[in-house]
Amino acid sequence: MNNSRIITLLSDFGTIDPYVSMMKGVILSINPAAVPLDMSHNIRPGDIFQAARFLREAYPFFPEGTIHVAVVDPGVGGSRRPIALEAHGHLFIGPDNGLFWPVINDCVDVKIVHLKEDRYFLQNVTETFHGRDLFAPVAAHVSMGKRFGRMGEEIDDPVKLTSSVPHEKNGALLGKVVWIDNFGNLITNISRKDMEHFIESGQPIIFAGDFEVKKFCGTYSEVGKGEILALINSSDMLEISVNQGRADVYTGTDLQKAVGLDVRVIRGEGG
Amino acid sequence: MNNSRIITLLSDFGTIDPYVSMMKGVILSINPAAVPLDMSHNIRPGDIFQAARFLREAYPFFPEGTIHVAVVDPGVGGSRRPIALEAHGHLFIGPDNGLFWPVINDCVDVKIVHLKEDRYFLQNVTETFHGRDLFAPVAAHVSMGKRFGRMGEEIDDPVKLTSSVPHEKNGALLGKVVWIDNFGNLITNISRKDMEHFIESGQPIIFAGDFEVKKFCGTYSEVGKGEILALINSSDMLEISVNQGRADVYTGTDLQKAVGLDVRVIRGEGG
Amino acid sequence: MNNSRIITLLSDFGTIDPYVSMMKGVILSINPAAVPLDMSHNIRPGDIFQAARFLREAYPFFPEGTIHVAVVDPGVGGSRRPIALEAHGHLFIGPDNGLFWPVINDCVDVKIVHLKEDRYFLQNVTETFHGRDLFAPVAAHVSMGKRFGRMGEEIDDPVKLTSSVPHEKNGALLGKVVWIDNFGNLITNISRKDMEHFIESGQPIIFAGDFEVKKFCGTYSEVGKGEILALINSSDMLEISVNQGRADVYTGTDLQKAVGLDVRVIRGEGG
Repeated sequence: MNNSRIITLLSDFGTIDPYVSMMKGVILSINPAAVPLDMSHNIRPGDIFQAARFLREAYPFFPEGTIHVAVVDPGVGGSRRPIALEAHGHLFIGPDNGLFWPVINDCVDVKIVHLKEDRYFLQNVTETFHGRDLFAPVAAHVSMGKRFGRMGEEIDDPVKLTSSVPHEKNGALLGKVVWIDNFGNLITNISRKDMEHFIESGQPIIFAGDFEVKKFCGTYSEVGKGEILALINSSDMLEISVNQGRADVYTGTDLQKAVGLDVRVIRGEGG
Repeated sequence: MNNSRIITLLSDFGTIDPYVSMMKGVILSINPAAVPLDMSHNIRPGDIFQAARFLREAYPFFPEGTIHVAVVDPGVGGSRRPIALEAHGHLFIGPDNGLFWPVINDCVDVKIVHLKEDRYFLQNVTETFHGRDLFAPVAAHVSMGKRFGRMGEEIDDPVKLTSSVPHEKNGALLGKVVWIDNFGNLITNISRKDMEHFIESGQPIIFAGDFEVKKFCGTYSEVGKGEILALINSSDMLEISVNQGRADVYTGTDLQKAVGLDVRVIRGEGG
Repeated sequence: MNNSRIITLLSDFGTIDPYVSMMKGVILSINPAAVPLDMSHNIRPGDIFQAARFLREAYPFFPEGTIHVAVVDPGVGGSRRPIALEAHGHLFIGPDNGLFWPVINDCVDVKIVHLKEDRYFLQNVTETFHGRDLFAPVAAHVSMGKRFGRMGEEIDDPVKLTSSVPHEKNGALLGKVVWIDNFGNLITNISRKDMEHFIESGQPIIFAGDFEVKKFCGTYSEVGKGEILALINSSDMLEISVNQGRADVYTGTDLQKAVGLDVRVIRGEGG
C-alpha cells in the first residue's frame, strides 16, 4: 500500500501548453489532499533516455512511498502498455517504453502491473494524452491508498532501454558523453567505480573526442577560473567541466554533437 | 462562498524575474494555508489570446471551488477594470481585457464583479503590478472565505475577445491555426463538432496554407515515423502533427507565421 | 526559533537537470510536512548579482518565518563558507559569496552563522553540490524547529557584494542599467528616492547610453502603443519601457550589452 501525498511529475510537455496544468487539476480533483510536485517538464520532446536518466538520479532522494509520474510518451495511443511499478519502496506510473528501465534494472524485487482497470482512468481516455487521462488519475487513486496491484495484470517483461556501457580496450576505458547540463558540464556514462583502476596509480588523462583533459580533480576550484578539468560529480559520474565557465563552449560542442561523443580514459602514471 | 486552498497562477511574467515569487509571497502572507500552484508563466508577453485559450482548456480539470488568478495585463494602470468572476463553480481573478471571455461565454450563469474595495488590496497599489498588489491579495482573501461579491460592483459588460470562428464556404470548412505547441503540433480553431460533416463520408483532405495533409487519424502512430497527419487532439480540436516529429519543422512554419495560417478542410469521398 | 513549513528555493540550476528535484526530495525526506516553493531556477549560471537582486526584492513579500534557500554557488567546494542567517524575521541559507549581502546590508540586527555541524548535512557531502547535500538538509531541519544558531559559529564578516551606486556629477544623476526583465524593460539602479530632486521642477530627461527618453510617466499606458517612456517601477526603481512593446528591442540592446549601460538623468525644467 502506498499513501504518499507527494506526486512528482516529470514530462516533456514544456510550460507553454496547458498539459501539465491539466494533469495537476485531474490529480487534485480526485485527491484534493495530494501535492503535485514538478520534477521537470523540460525533457527534450520524446527523449526517453534523458527522462530515464533524470528519474533514476533524482528519485532516491525522495522519501519512500513517493509516487512518481513520468510521461515521455512518443508511442501514446499505440501498442505500448501503461504501467505502474514499485521499486525500492517508491511507486512509478507511466508508459512502458524503457523510461523506467534503469529503476527496474537496479532493483532485485520489483512488481510491475500493466494498467487495465479503466475505472481508475478518466471516463474518456483520449488516444493522445494518457498523462492526463490515465496516468494522473491512477496516481491520484494510489495516493489515496488504492493498491496498484489490483489495477491490472502483473507483467515481467518491461521494455528495456539499451544504452552503451563503458568498457576497457587496449588498457583504455571507453565511454560516452550522455548529457550537457545547465552549466555546460559534459556528463559521461563512466562511473566512479569504473574510474577506480584508472586513478590508483596517478592522474589519468581523459579525452572527450579529440580534446585532452589533463586535470582530474576533486572540485571545480582546484583549477584556475576558465580552465578545463574532469571530476567525479555529485551523481558519482565522470564529468568534464570548466571552473566558472562552460565545458560545452570550451570544447566547441553542443547538445546534438556532444551526446554520444567518445570519452577515453588512460591510466595515470607516476603519482 | 469559496474557500479552496488551491490558487492557480497563470501569467506572462516568465521565471527570470521575481514577479511570480512576489505574488506567491503575498498570497502566503495573507493566507498561510493557501497553496499557490503554477499553471504557466510562459505565456508570450501580452498575448491575451494564448492566455485565454490556455485557461479555458485547463480550468475544467481542476476541482470546483478552485481559484484561478490569471494576469496577462498589457493595460495595467490604465482604464481596464480589475475583476473577479464565478463560472461553473470556479473563481477567476484578473484584468477585464478579454482573458476570461472564453470562460464567460461558455457559461449561462456567471457573476462578475468590478473589484473596488481596496481593503482587500495591498496598502500601496502600484500602477504597474496589479498581479501582486491587487489580484494576489484578493485571491488570498477569497481563499479564506471572503465573498468576492462584496469586493466591488457587479457588472454585465465584460470585455469580449473576438477571435475568428471556422465557417463553411463552397463546401469547404475554413479555419485557422491558433497555436504551435511544445511538440510542434499545429493546433487549429476547428473543433471535433465542426469536423463531423466532413468525415462522415470518408477521409477528409486538410490544407494548412498550401500544405496538403492526406491522413486523418485517431492517433500519431497510425502513420509512419516522420509522416504528417491530422487528428482530433485531447482538447477536441483539429491538430496537424508529425508522428515522433515536429509539424512546424515539417511544414516550415514558426509561431509568428503559423498562428493565423488558413486551414481548409475538404469533405472526404468514398470511405 | 523558526518553524515555517514554506522553504523557498532560488538557484541557477535550470530545469533540464535533476538538481532542483534532488533538493526537494532531500527536504521532504527530512521533513515530510515541508513545502518547497520555487522562486526561480533560471538565474544566469553563476550570476550572484542577479540572484542577490532577485532575493532582495522578493523576500519581503513572504511571511515572517519563511526559510529561503538560495544557491548560486560558483565557488562550491572551495573555501567559501556555507552560512545561515536571520534578518527581518526571515531565515536565509546558502553560500557566503555576496548573494545575501543586500539582505544583510539593509538590516541593523542580523545574526549570521557559519554552518559546521555536519549532523545536519547529508551523510556524504560532495564537493560539487552543497545545495543538495548541505543547504537543503539544513533548511529542512530548521523548518522542524532546530535552531540554526546551534549549527555552527556566529560570524560578523560576511562577503560583501560591491555594486555601483548612482551618484551626482555636474548636476546630472549617473546610474546604470542592471537588468532586462521578461518584458524587455531596462531596470536601473536608480531608486525613487534618488529621482526625487530631479523631478520636482518638471519632466526630467533620461539617457540610456546615447538613447534619449523624454517621457517620465506614472504607468505604461500614458504614452502611445510602441512609444518609449521611463517610470518608477513596482520595486521603486527607475525603469525604461515601451508601452506594449520591448525597450530592449527599441533601444537595440541585449542583456550582455545593456547590463552596465550608463543611465543619465537631467533635471526637469519648467513644469
